Amino acid sequence: MKAEIITIGDEILLGQIVDSNSAWMGQQLDLLGIQLGQITSVSDTREAIYESLSGASERADLVLVTGGLGPTKDDVTKETISAFFNSGLVRNEKVYQHVLALFAKRGTDRPIPERNYAQADVLASCDVLFNDVGTAPGMWLEKGGKFFVFLPGVPFEMKFLMEHSVIPKLKEILEIQQHKVVYHAHILTMGLGESFLADKIADIEDDLPSYIRLAYLPTLGTVRLRLSAMGEDLDELKRSVDAFADRIAMRLVENVVAREDIKPENVIVEEFTVRGIRLATAESCTGGLLASAITSISGASAIFDCGIIAYHNRIKQEVLGVDAGILNDYGAVSEETVVQMAEGVKRISGADYAIATSGVAGPLGGTLDKPVGTVWIAVSGKSEIVTRKFNFRNDRKINIERSVAQALNMLWQLYKKEHA
Amino acid sequence: MKAEIITIGDEILLGQIVDSNSAWMGQQLDLLGIQLGQITSVSDTREAIYESLSGASERADLVLVTGGLGPTKDDVTKETISAFFNSGLVRNEKVYQHVLALFAKRGTDRPIPERNYAQADVLASCDVLFNDVGTAPGMWLEKGGKFFVFLPGVPFEMKFLMEHSVIPKLKEILEIQQHKVVYHAHILTMGLGESFLADKIADIEDDLPSYIRLAYLPTLGTVRLRLSAMGEDLDELKRSVDAFADRIAMRLVENVVAREDIKPENVIVEEFTVRGIRLATAESCTGGLLASAITSISGASAIFDCGIIAYHNRIKQEVLGVDAGILNDYGAVSEETVVQMAEGVKRISGADYAIATSGVAGPLGGTLDKPVGTVWIAVSGKSEIVTRKFNFRNDRKINIERSVAQALNMLWQLYKKEHA
Repeated sequence: MKAEIITIGDEILLGQIVDSNSAWMGQQLDLLGIQLGQITSVSDTREAIYESLSGASERADLVLVTGGLGPTKDDVTKETISAFFNSGLVRNEKVYQHVLALFAKRGTDRPIPERNYAQADVLASCDVLFNDVGTAPGMWLEKGGKFFVFLPGVPFEMKFLMEHSVIPKLKEILEIQQHKVVYHAHILTMGLGESFLADKIADIEDDLPSYIRLAYLPTLGTVRLRLSAMGEDLDELKRSVDAFADRIAMRLVENVVAREDIKPENVIVEEFTVRGIRLATAESCTGGLLASAITSISGASAIFDCGIIAYHNRIKQEVLGVDAGILNDYGAVSEETVVQMAEGVKRISGADYAIATSGVAGPLGGTLDKPVGTVWIAVSGKSEIVTRKFNFRNDRKINIERSVAQALNMLWQLYKKEHA
Repeated sequence: MKAEIITIGDEILLGQIVDSNSAWMGQQLDLLGIQLGQITSVSDTREAIYESLSGASERADLVLVTGGLGPTKDDVTKETISAFFNSGLVRNEKVYQHVLALFAKRGTDRPIPERNYAQADVLASCDVLFNDVGTAPGMWLEKGGKFFVFLPGVPFEMKFLMEHSVIPKLKEILEIQQHKVVYHAHILTMGLGESFLADKIADIEDDLPSYIRLAYLPTLGTVRLRLSAMGEDLDELKRSVDAFADRIAMRLVENVVAREDIKPENVIVEEFTVRGIRLATAESCTGGLLASAITSISGASAIFDCGIIAYHNRIKQEVLGVDAGILNDYGAVSEETVVQMAEGVKRISGADYAIATSGVAGPLGGTLDKPVGTVWIAVSGKSEIVTRKFNFRNDRKINIERSVAQALNMLWQLYKKEHA
């Protein structure tokens, strides 16, 4: 099955928003084994919408359309697709009651403009995709043996409808009509680059049968490996894919963080929660982003009590207890300083593990000795303290993000060593 | 002039990367007064590239293409565009020397694969856009009175070539050939929603001549107003646009943060630096993201010494000095607690201003009394302390981001009041 995505609306064309919807939908289609051939972003005019629908329907079997369904834009999109599908608009009673109820809940005194009720108007020939989290419903249509899905552009409404309606429907079509099932296994690794990982598992990759695909998905500090297979028998696929995933995970054991598609900070919060381990942070150059990565995870309060952002040397001394002599002799960006910062925050918080960062994020502040991108990181564990110096030499934002990624990596390595 | 963007490569279609290039290019085109009609993302196959180029050249006067120029992908894209423009590939000596020099600088012992030198091959009929920050050059071509620009997909290489080659060339075409210049004025506001701002300046908006366009660009906590005009005489446009921008800024004086297109945290760092004012943060629910927003700005160390992330009540007591009785009687998410947190971090850091946050970020931890999204924020200033309670009722990520935006807004309002 080949697919295309169309996004309708000027916000993307004017660069007011980045099209993250299509990336997410692309991932979901890829997981289903559906090949996404094109993404097209067009303005909300009749001509542009009609032309993009015609073009996509010639090339693809499935067309996913987002946007153009808000209360102010409704008319153009719905009128155009009404013409395209040669199907009139009818008011859907269930959606109408849902819209009424939503407005009642908001409890406004002002009269509701008629255009808001028009959100309940759908194409007569469509399957309505009910939107529990917003006013605009989705629509599923078929024409000439091809599938068309219309979804609101608000990301969490689009995701809700994809997860609750569209993906289950697509799975059913793939499984029941085409007898195709897809199975994936995920391996999250940290600490080794893509090409080094590939070298280490070259022989296993050679053994992969042609129906199993291995993808390397690198982001800052992590590489996700994904094994995908498409076939007719889910149990068989699962057995075969999992066996290869086991071999790869065994080979890369020093770098494997999880066997799921999650973030390193997720793994750390989960694992530390189970073990009753607590973490603290003492940040200089990362300025709060490290703590923010940890606390972005729901349930972080079970493992994280305290973070100190000691941007000024005086705070490193007075709050974290770093020796004035150390700061004088070695400077703030030094192994000696990050060690004392980590120990200091451990003392204050009583945590089992502590991470400290100090570096030159840039673009100012670099010296010959310590150029922009020089970062020292320390992780203090149960009985050991490890330190590392990095030279990122990038821009401020990337230097900070890489520091956070490497800090989490070092934490994970030390934790694994101490809890082997 | 009408434009289209084409991105080539599977990474976007597979959802491995979000297409932020096109959003940035869309903004730049909009600033030039060039209308972007469509963005098309296609796979790097001959058919897809050729078809998208043909389609775009029928609809637009300017086609910007990114991606498909890396050392491993070169062949397909360049061969296809060579056929499309009916122009052979020639090795450009200047680019070749540049590629050689870059590899020499990296100092690798291994022989350089021939495909890397092929980056110096360009279409015979193109203007080469020299890429000082990478190996793949850009190309500028004309066909049938239309302009085509090919750029590498690496964001900072694309931006370098846009800023140094493409935008200047486009300006020249617009100014010299079409006698059109564009002028913009920016107003950054905080604390009022789009529709409230629009109500306040409705009469000024009515007075705008048809050649001046006013755009509202809302993001979390801020609304940017942008006045744009296109005409023939830059001085005249500037005079007229600036006069309207002055009227609007005067009317919205309580909410105007800057007359530039920058972020609130930028304004705060700049303004506090000039005034010699120092800021500290005491965070609970925002978990470091507030300090991270401040320290993401280059030069933040001039105004920011210290941030305490007091996630656990024990840290609120022991480090920030919040009374046990207050925590007991009112809870961690209360006005009383955030006031003591702000005062505590001010005492520790000696800062002039301090911000404190405490709330239920969710999805867990909500109660009937304090549902998910309840956030208390305090800002302690020179002589006054202000507090506010928010009910964001969103997901964890958005609740945290909104708290940060509102905290910066409250800081700015109090600063302005105390330095009027």
